[in-house]
Parts: sequence; C-alpha cells; structure tokens
Amino acid sequence: MISLVGAGPGDPELLTVRGLRRLQDAEVVVHDALVGTGVLALARPEAEMIDVGKRPGAPVPQELINELLVQLGRSGRNIVRLKGGDPFVFGRGGEEALALAAAGLDFEVVPGVSSISAVPASAGIPVTHRGLSSQVTIASGHDPAALDYDALARAPGTLVFFMGFAGLAGIAAGLIDHGRDPETPAAVVASGTTDDQRTVTATLAGIADASAELEPPALVVIGEVVALAPLLDARTPAALPFEATMQRATANSKSIRQNVLFARAFTR
Amino acid sequence: MISLVGAGPGDPELLTVRGLRRLQDAEVVVHDALVGTGVLALARPEAEMIDVGKRPGAPVPQELINELLVQLGRSGRNIVRLKGGDPFVFGRGGEEALALAAAGLDFEVVPGVSSISAVPASAGIPVTHRGLSSQVTIASGHDPAALDYDALARAPGTLVFFMGFAGLAGIAAGLIDHGRDPETPAAVVASGTTDDQRTVTATLAGIADASAELEPPALVVIGEVVALAPLLDARTPAALPFEATMQRATANSKSIRQNVLFARAFTR
Repeated sequence: MISLVGAGPGDPELLTVRGLRRLQDAEVVVHDALVGTGVLALARPEAEMIDVGKRPGAPVPQELINELLVQLGRSGRNIVRLKGGDPFVFGRGGEEALALAAAGLDFEVVPGVSSISAVPASAGIPVTHRGLSSQVTIASGHDPAALDYDALARAPGTLVFFMGFAGLAGIAAGLIDHGRDPETPAAVVASGTTDDQRTVTATLAGIADASAELEPPALVVIGEVVALAPLLDARTPAALPFEATMQRATANSKSIRQNVLFARAFTR
Repeated sequence: MISLVGAGPGDPELLTVRGLRRLQDAEVVVHDALVGTGVLALARPEAEMIDVGKRPGAPVPQELINELLVQLGRSGRNIVRLKGGDPFVFGRGGEEALALAAAGLDFEVVPGVSSISAVPASAGIPVTHRGLSSQVTIASGHDPAALDYDALARAPGTLVFFMGFAGLAGIAAGLIDHGRDPETPAAVVASGTTDDQRTVTATLAGIADASAELEPPALVVIGEVVALAPLLDARTPAALPFEATMQRATANSKSIRQNVLFARAFTR
C-alpha cells in the first residue's frame, strides 16, 4: 500500500493520528525537504528514508519522483510519501496520485494540517473573522509575475501566499498598484509552528522591508485579520497601528468591540 | 488550561496527535454539532460534554458560547473547545480566542485538518494541480446574496464554498451571470471523510439539480480540478464530460497528459 501523507506545518504533534500510524508502519518513507526532522523521527529506525526534497539549484524533477513512487508501489511494501502540510494544497500530490492511478496501483491520501490556516493561527491570526474577513484566497507566490493582481487586489478578505516571501516586494507592489489599500495589515510568519517561529507585521506597503531579515520557509498573510495577531498571540509584536482596522472590525458587533478593548488592555 | 482544538473533517483518525492528547486530558469538552460522534468518543468517559452546536431554528448565540468558555476557563480545569475542521477557518474560533484574551485567560489553539482540502481530497479532488489551478478561493455560502460574484467569477483556479449547499442554485447562477463558464466542472461532497460520504459531479450549470438529493453537511467545489475526481477516487462517478478540461490541463505537461490517459484506461 502506498499512502500520500500530509506531514502538517512542522510541529510533529500536528501530524494526524492516521498519518502517525502510517509512518510507524512504513518500510519506505519518501519525503520532502520541508518535512521537519521531528516528524521524520517518528518513522521506524529501520525504515528506508528517501529525501526527494526540491532545493534551489538542485531540484529533483517531479516526473522522477512520480516514477520512483510507482516503482516503490509495485514492490508491495508499505510506502509513505510524506509531504509538508497537506498533499493536495500546493503539494503536487495530485500529480503523484495521478501517476499511481495511471500505473493501476492502489493508493490512499491522508490529509494533513495545511500551513494555510495553522501557520497564521500559530501567530494569532484567524484567517476568517466576523466583521473582518469571510473569504480566503490562497495563491502561490513562487512566480510573482504570473499572478493576476487585478483579481487578487479585488478579492475580499484574507490573502495567503505560499512561497511568497522571496518575491514579497513585487507581490505587495502589484497588489497596491491594482488598488489594494497600502495600509492593509500584513504579516510574514517564518518557520510557523516550530520552535524557530518568528512573525513580523506591518502595513502592506511596509511589509517587504520590515520582514527582510526573516529566513524561509515563511508564509505571507495579507488582510485586516492580521491586526488581531498581537491580541491573540503574545509572541507577535504589536507593530501595526490598527485603530482604523479595529473600528471597521468591531462596527457590527458590540461584543467583539468590547473584547478587543479588553484584550488590548491585557497585552499592553 | 483551555484549548481551542480543531476536530478535523469528520474521520476521527484525522484528529491531530496533540488534539487527541488534549481531548484525552479534558475534564470538560465544549463541542459543536458538526463534530462527529467518533471524535467525541475519544474523550474520557467521565469528561463533562457540553453541546453548543448551532442548529437551524435553535441557535446558541456566539456571545453565550464565549461567556461559557470564559467561565470554564476561570475554573482552572482542563477545558477543550472542540470545533469541526480548523478553529480559525470559518469556525468563529477567533471570536472565542478574543473573548478569552479579553478575560486575561491563557489559551492555546490546536489547528485541525480543515474540510477545505480534506473533503475534496476524500473525493479525489486536489484543490491545486499544475496546469489546472494554482489558486484557491474559500468562501462562506451561508448568505449567497452577500457574496461578491464579480470577484468570485474572476478568481482564477478553484472555488470552495463552506455552507454553500443550501444556496447552491443561487451561487451557481450568480457565478455564471458574472462570467464563469457554465461548463466548469463542479462537485458536491456530502459527509466527506465519513462512512456516509457521497459525491456528485456535474457542470456548474447542472450541479444544483444533480446534487439535490444529497444531505448536508456538504462542501461545494468548483473548478477544473473536479474533472480529476473520477480518476483519483474510485467512489466518485465519472459524470462529467471532461475532454475539454483535460486537454487544457495537459497542454503544458506531456507526463500529466500520459498519466491522465493511462488513469482513464484503468477507471473504465
């Protein structure tokens, strides 16, 4: 049996119960560079570990990974294909599943906790919040020139960019050029959910400069929900002047307004 | 300590390792209607279980839930607030966290596997896929009249609607009226990841009629990735004529094209 398993965002305790079970039963583990050492350590000591992580400069072609999985799948052994986050969210797990289906092999997908919500949450950012955001757009920032900035700038609610840190200056400029408010709260969360987690918040106009010293992997979150971060996570510095955002956020809910005021009293 | 725990999409094995641990240590569990009985059964037999599920007709006001959590948090007992999916993705967990912060109480967020990717995955739908979708928009379909159809119709890639099943006819019409191709593949996945899972696929124009007999809870997925479902999950019927989609999907990748052809040979 071959299992495409989501390893979650980094913290090994965010692996699912089924993912853990599959990993403990695996004879071969084929894993990405982004899967943390804490998760890999959960495999059996005698398991064969194959690192196919795509690293800048020396990428392993996806076709080769697909072919490897098909060959391993034919061996009849217990194979785990361990991917960071969720296999079907920017993980190219669909291509691997298609290759296995094309070879007539049985496989299963074990979903994982995706970074798209877990990493913002680990910095105190709920990607949706009544009065602030009822829509989330998730895009890859891998190739900033390929993004549809007109559509992204108009998308209501929260924007989350995978692989958007390296090209953040271009992404922010593209959004502002197409009409997104330069004062929109923005955050970069580096190494989210791990002990090395660091978060920087700033306005959309200032986020690229403010976060320049962070190291990847990092997730980019843009939207008014970011203003909640210093209230909901003590480690997130209150760099944003969020009066205006909070007034909009709380205009429709007296209880939320009251809680924001109380929470700020506690975090100051 | 009070923990806001994501229960995942339904299947109890998709709870995280930390979520399971917190649930097993909980003296009080405050849970939603959407949390499956399989997950609730993992709590200790002596734990106090409080159902605050919002059901049509007799909703528990969010302010009351917030207040309950604050009172419980002050008791010093181990409290788990168990929410379907992920607490910060359309779960109003941010409001509960804000109420706890406002009361000066310590709390943690334990992210969960969100339905947004796990439910499509359970029906063979990767929400992103090279050549088909590099962007995902997640919206609430709770109030179809409140949606920005112009922005949604223009959003490239995959659309996922929470609570979009009841108003699906209006959502589909709104998207088509604003320019989304009526032939776009669409799916409704009911009771995803549970034993009762049922999936219907059709074109965007036909999905509301085709799925009329399904029962909630159900997730709506719209986009070309839906065409992959019958290839990647044997339980999903091949109702869609997906030639055109597949030609677009495979235009840029010979290996994906080949795998689609092979996979179709196996699924016929």
